[in-house]
Amino acid sequence: MSQPVLYSELPWPEAERRVREGAPLFLPLGATEQHGRHMALGTDLVLPTAIAVRAARRVGGLVLPGIAYGNRSQPKTGGGPAFPGTINITANTFSLIVRDIICDLHRQKARRIVTVNGHYENVWPTIEGIELALDAIGRDKARDLTILRVDHWDMIRKETLERVFPDGYPGIELEHASVLETSMMLALRPELVDLTQAVHDGPASFLPYDRYPEPPAEVPASGVLSLTEGSAAEKGEWLLKDCEDGIVNIVNREFPSG
Amino acid sequence: MSQPVLYSELPWPEAERRVREGAPLFLPLGATEQHGRHMALGTDLVLPTAIAVRAARRVGGLVLPGIAYGNRSQPKTGGGPAFPGTINITANTFSLIVRDIICDLHRQKARRIVTVNGHYENVWPTIEGIELALDAIGRDKARDLTILRVDHWDMIRKETLERVFPDGYPGIELEHASVLETSMMLALRPELVDLTQAVHDGPASFLPYDRYPEPPAEVPASGVLSLTEGSAAEKGEWLLKDCEDGIVNIVNREFPSG
Amino acid sequence: MSQPVLYSELPWPEAERRVREGAPLFLPLGATEQHGRHMALGTDLVLPTAIAVRAARRVGGLVLPGIAYGNRSQPKTGGGPAFPGTINITANTFSLIVRDIICDLHRQKARRIVTVNGHYENVWPTIEGIELALDAIGRDKARDLTILRVDHWDMIRKETLERVFPDGYPGIELEHASVLETSMMLALRPELVDLTQAVHDGPASFLPYDRYPEPPAEVPASGVLSLTEGSAAEKGEWLLKDCEDGIVNIVNREFPSG
Amino acid sequence: MSQPVLYSELPWPEAERRVREGAPLFLPLGATEQHGRHMALGTDLVLPTAIAVRAARRVGGLVLPGIAYGNRSQPKTGGGPAFPGTINITANTFSLIVRDIICDLHRQKARRIVTVNGHYENVWPTIEGIELALDAIGRDKARDLTILRVDHWDMIRKETLERVFPDGYPGIELEHASVLETSMMLALRPELVDLTQAVHDGPASFLPYDRYPEPPAEVPASGVLSLTEGSAAEKGEWLLKDCEDGIVNIVNREFPSG
Amino acid sequence: MSQPVLYSELPWPEAERRVREGAPLFLPLGATEQHGRHMALGTDLVLPTAIAVRAARRVGGLVLPGIAYGNRSQPKTGGGPAFPGTINITANTFSLIVRDIICDLHRQKARRIVTVNGHYENVWPTIEGIELALDAIGRDKARDLTILRVDHWDMIRKETLERVFPDGYPGIELEHASVLETSMMLALRPELVDLTQAVHDGPASFLPYDRYPEPPAEVPASGVLSLTEGSAAEKGEWLLKDCEDGIVNIVNREFPSG
Amino acid sequence: MSQPVLYSELPWPEAERRVREGAPLFLPLGATEQHGRHMALGTDLVLPTAIAVRAARRVGGLVLPGIAYGNRSQPKTGGGPAFPGTINITANTFSLIVRDIICDLHRQKARRIVTVNGHYENVWPTIEGIELALDAIGRDKARDLTILRVDHWDMIRKETLERVFPDGYPGIELEHASVLETSMMLALRPELVDLTQAVHDGPASFLPYDRYPEPPAEVPASGVLSLTEGSAAEKGEWLLKDCEDGIVNIVNREFPSG
Repeated sequence: MSQPVLYSELPWPEAERRVREGAPLFLPLGATEQHGRHMALGTDLVLPTAIAVRAARRVGGLVLPGIAYGNRSQPKTGGGPAFPGTINITANTFSLIVRDIICDLHRQKARRIVTVNGHYENVWPTIEGIELALDAIGRDKARDLTILRVDHWDMIRKETLERVFPDGYPGIELEHASVLETSMMLALRPELVDLTQAVHDGPASFLPYDRYPEPPAEVPASGVLSLTEGSAAEKGEWLLKDCEDGIVNIVNREFPSG
Repeated sequence: MSQPVLYSELPWPEAERRVREGAPLFLPLGATEQHGRHMALGTDLVLPTAIAVRAARRVGGLVLPGIAYGNRSQPKTGGGPAFPGTINITANTFSLIVRDIICDLHRQKARRIVTVNGHYENVWPTIEGIELALDAIGRDKARDLTILRVDHWDMIRKETLERVFPDGYPGIELEHASVLETSMMLALRPELVDLTQAVHDGPASFLPYDRYPEPPAEVPASGVLSLTEGSAAEKGEWLLKDCEDGIVNIVNREFPSG
Repeated sequence: MSQPVLYSELPWPEAERRVREGAPLFLPLGATEQHGRHMALGTDLVLPTAIAVRAARRVGGLVLPGIAYGNRSQPKTGGGPAFPGTINITANTFSLIVRDIICDLHRQKARRIVTVNGHYENVWPTIEGIELALDAIGRDKARDLTILRVDHWDMIRKETLERVFPDGYPGIELEHASVLETSMMLALRPELVDLTQAVHDGPASFLPYDRYPEPPAEVPASGVLSLTEGSAAEKGEWLLKDCEDGIVNIVNREFPSG
Repeated sequence: MSQPVLYSELPWPEAERRVREGAPLFLPLGATEQHGRHMALGTDLVLPTAIAVRAARRVGGLVLPGIAYGNRSQPKTGGGPAFPGTINITANTFSLIVRDIICDLHRQKARRIVTVNGHYENVWPTIEGIELALDAIGRDKARDLTILRVDHWDMIRKETLERVFPDGYPGIELEHASVLETSMMLALRPELVDLTQAVHDGPASFLPYDRYPEPPAEVPASGVLSLTEGSAAEKGEWLLKDCEDGIVNIVNREFPSG
Repeated sequence: MSQPVLYSELPWPEAERRVREGAPLFLPLGATEQHGRHMALGTDLVLPTAIAVRAARRVGGLVLPGIAYGNRSQPKTGGGPAFPGTINITANTFSLIVRDIICDLHRQKARRIVTVNGHYENVWPTIEGIELALDAIGRDKARDLTILRVDHWDMIRKETLERVFPDGYPGIELEHASVLETSMMLALRPELVDLTQAVHDGPASFLPYDRYPEPPAEVPASGVLSLTEGSAAEKGEWLLKDCEDGIVNIVNREFPSG
Repeated sequence: MSQPVLYSELPWPEAERRVREGAPLFLPLGATEQHGRHMALGTDLVLPTAIAVRAARRVGGLVLPGIAYGNRSQPKTGGGPAFPGTINITANTFSLIVRDIICDLHRQKARRIVTVNGHYENVWPTIEGIELALDAIGRDKARDLTILRVDHWDMIRKETLERVFPDGYPGIELEHASVLETSMMLALRPELVDLTQAVHDGPASFLPYDRYPEPPAEVPASGVLSLTEGSAAEKGEWLLKDCEDGIVNIVNREFPSG
């Protein structure tokens, strides 16, 4: 299992061989989005890429270049499209990227694709992109293809959340730029986190509806929806381990001979 | 407040007057989607339309014709696009419908729009449609416009859920065609519910990822994700009352002179 | 023939069975458009829906939820897109709705579709939507599918027009919100017509060209292109009967075992 | 009035000057479509181009390069998209061509545009293209622009029709490749008409609905919907004169200082 | 080889026969773009059309109606989209035109298509249009189709360039409206060239990057990128002969039985 | 000038400040495309990213996340879309990515954008994406924005090419995966180059036209269009220095106070 895992670092004969032999292809889906005053804008791509690399090493997979621009950030899940620093693309463009990549992977006979998503707002345009690809390929011809769609936070086990949040888990919906993401970044790229800059102006309290074009003033000024307090690299490792294990289990289950 | 509330039943001079006077315009967003062996395919439009009508009566609003075709059903939230009876449209088409309607309402000087959604898969393409409308109108010019986006289930109060589920609320994510929707339909349109046909083959237990093109066989054969047992018209009334009150409160808050 | 006819009111097992047994599926295509000072904005959907229901009862068909938003109104046929009360969508969006619905009906093995149109401006984007659906399905695979496209006014017999207009028929092109539509609405939904509000400022006299962006001032202020005088529920029944019979004949001819 | 009229034959300084001085710009819209066994496929562009040239000479206008590919032919108006020889483009593409040309003409300060259409199926996508252009330009900014949309057959006077058809006019809807078009082509380009090849297998008798994907077998094998008998160059001249005069009158009325 | 070559001038039975017998179909791709103070705006369509006609005569081919509106002009290759007189369409629209035409030619069983391009900016959207057509047709079904894409300037032999430019060839990239195009136009349509209007303000000297929205002021005021001096009809004939021979050779090579 | 240069590694307050202060934003445009048997698939993104980083350090700029998927590879410039390992996206999708990013950068008040391209096939859809962004922003409002579009190979000076190719420069058109790219990769990421795998089966000799769907068999089997012989890290440094200097000069010229 010591083979290289980054698709973009292979020459074509090696990529062709690996794809032909059935290597699962991991596609990290991220964003460029504010993650609080204390953490890098690229967090949503750093995390799924790192998780995909770890999983790929264990299952003989390859990690494709990630998508660094995500579907429009929303106030309740990422601060909103107007937050400084965030760069949004439209849902349609995001779906077309996913569609085109899957279509072309299918053309070159890839049959095992795993999208690993790190940005909540990507969930729906990824689904749409996959469906559009299946339409374009033709539902009949697409039968030899399997696409798995994973959001990394769904890999985290309940036991781990209880360890990370001994006082109770505030829920995934407020976890943007908060303890989960901060801890994983501390484990992976501590130089991209500066907890001294963390401002404790959360947790956000959201109204049960959306307003456009001017959203209610409910996103904390820092951009952190919940809390950063209690973030730690060690916790990040627990979480990353869950994500890695979860994906490895899924791949082994779905691609038995992988 | 005894004015008519259905936009489509007004002649144009009346519609023009009401819009000019600031009547909030409610746009019900639904679907044509399986809702178990016991309930009508149109449930997702019946509910938000009925709720919008009740709210409109109290705030002097108008209810626009609803959208009866929803964004592609997903296995975990509605049984999936391949379930018999379900008619799916694409995310892009759904977004364009929302965009076009908002643009044209703005053209005719409507300034207060409330989308009332009854189909989970519509959430994201509705957001996209609103953003596309704001882009098309021009962000500067759109400043005189307010669009509120409401999912009816978010209006239900915690206290009511505790009354409806004395043994604990299984969570909104499994509520498709289950006690909440069934009870509200029993209250509104009992002839569209036949509990003798309800099959208790749930609750669904979902894997923490999606698979395409063939989803895992995890949707109960009935299409009911959770349970129908315990559904009752009386509970439905409690829930509808919450939805109505919730929207009335939002409208009063956001459109003070409404 | 006493089976229910509204698709949206069936539970999925019933819908599936009816589709499998070859029930023709009627798709009403309407609009939300000014129909004079005396008649409801929803007229263009009320009429084809009612006609489709009557025909469906006789041929064992099902009526799908109708499309309430029509392609941009034009001055010469409906008052134009800027008339108060009218809500326009673009031709492209309308075509995509038709395309998506047909594609998904084909996916669930529907083979007999009848669009019943009540808004003149929908004619061309409906044709385009059907062609786009055939392209998307694949012309080879679409051979098992038959789509009939009907404009309800084409079902009216010459003899009936002579009875309705003993002094001569002014022609369908000026019939917007005039005697034909008003009479049918009086027969179907008299509460949505108030002839005391009818203003006799027509008939319209159109220049033989279009002008954009500002159309010539040729639409009567009332929005009625011809006359309402002489409208009567009884005449409406004659007309509706023609529409119903015409569609029943077409269905029996095209779907012999229907 | 002896200035050149073909835009494409001018060098840019001359085109710039003419546009700046307010020359109306005529855009011929045609098709490549079967016109019977006796007439050229390009008829639908030959006619509006010739008419535009004649009108342009009299009003100091310029004729832009014409669009030779038209929106999908339909059985009842041109033989249908599957007729041999016909080359169809989609409604969306046709609309985008019209949109792009108008937007770019507006950019270079053209303010007077006249589309002259020779293909019935182009009517609706031309309207849509104009509306899309106005949306793209911005309705406010588009106020200095006037677009006139003319179908050449609407310019023909009743008196002329009575002269051409002394036994009664069969109606424009069957006139495809019939006496009107054939006569005008005989007047303009007699070498593109060979009446010895005309087959008298019409007139077409159409059912009052459309069927897809296989249209009813109702188009005469020749492709001529009505009759060619009685076609004559002299009649063609009468008709062309009407078209020319009609457009000149419109331009003089709409662009008084033109 | 004395058969007619213009597709639009044939009646449909003749077009059908020629296509069935394998006649190569030439599609000229042009533009409406400034070509200096001395030459017509339509140059980019005149040239490929004339070349296609000459080649078609020798190989029994047919020339389809050309596309007169090209992809956005760029400063370095045609003066830029803002140059007076130029009418630009978008890359997407241009691609869709090419896609639609190819799809429909395939539908009517054309199997040999040759695009002959005269506008540099068309190169890429033509490629995209061809690929989109192949996607729409289906790569499997498209195997019976061959599309050749030719830019006419690539047909010019080195020997001819040396004869035309005895002092050295300045390179194709500056040849817009310069000696090559001017000479060919002098040979074909001398009335569309007025060398007395040629201004010698070139050659252009371009910066090695593009700037938007305001391009650097590097296009000579005349619009001629290089020189017109030395243009001559005789040289034009040499060049046209090369283009004609080049295409004839390609067609004979690729369509041996053509 | 020791500030961090990677946008994705900054927290939002820092990104906001830098953008507000006028830092030029560099957007690397790449591809995932075969680069011979000896070099990594990601070459086309590695190069412009590294060049942008070097330039950004000197001018106080920021480097945005790069685009790793490029417009369809073509045989003559990259081996073609069907070459193993290459992952193509469509021109339209690529343009929309560029459009969306520019629009959103403009929204957050970025006024200085520099695209740095490393994949020839991206040139045209990048131009289109920029133009679409300017259309979407509005040409008036876009006046405060400057976008520079650079292809890195245009930064290489003639003197350097003469040093790299003492026997004569074969021309940029064959340089795919050849000496220039290989040398720069040897300088930057030697572990992604394995010259022992280089196969000398070039240079490619291309026919002067394209053929679809099956291109002529003219791409060398290795995918290298020219030669790799003579590649050296030292030469790569010369080339990178040119690219860096070239961009620094452009930025200093265009953004004087940068």
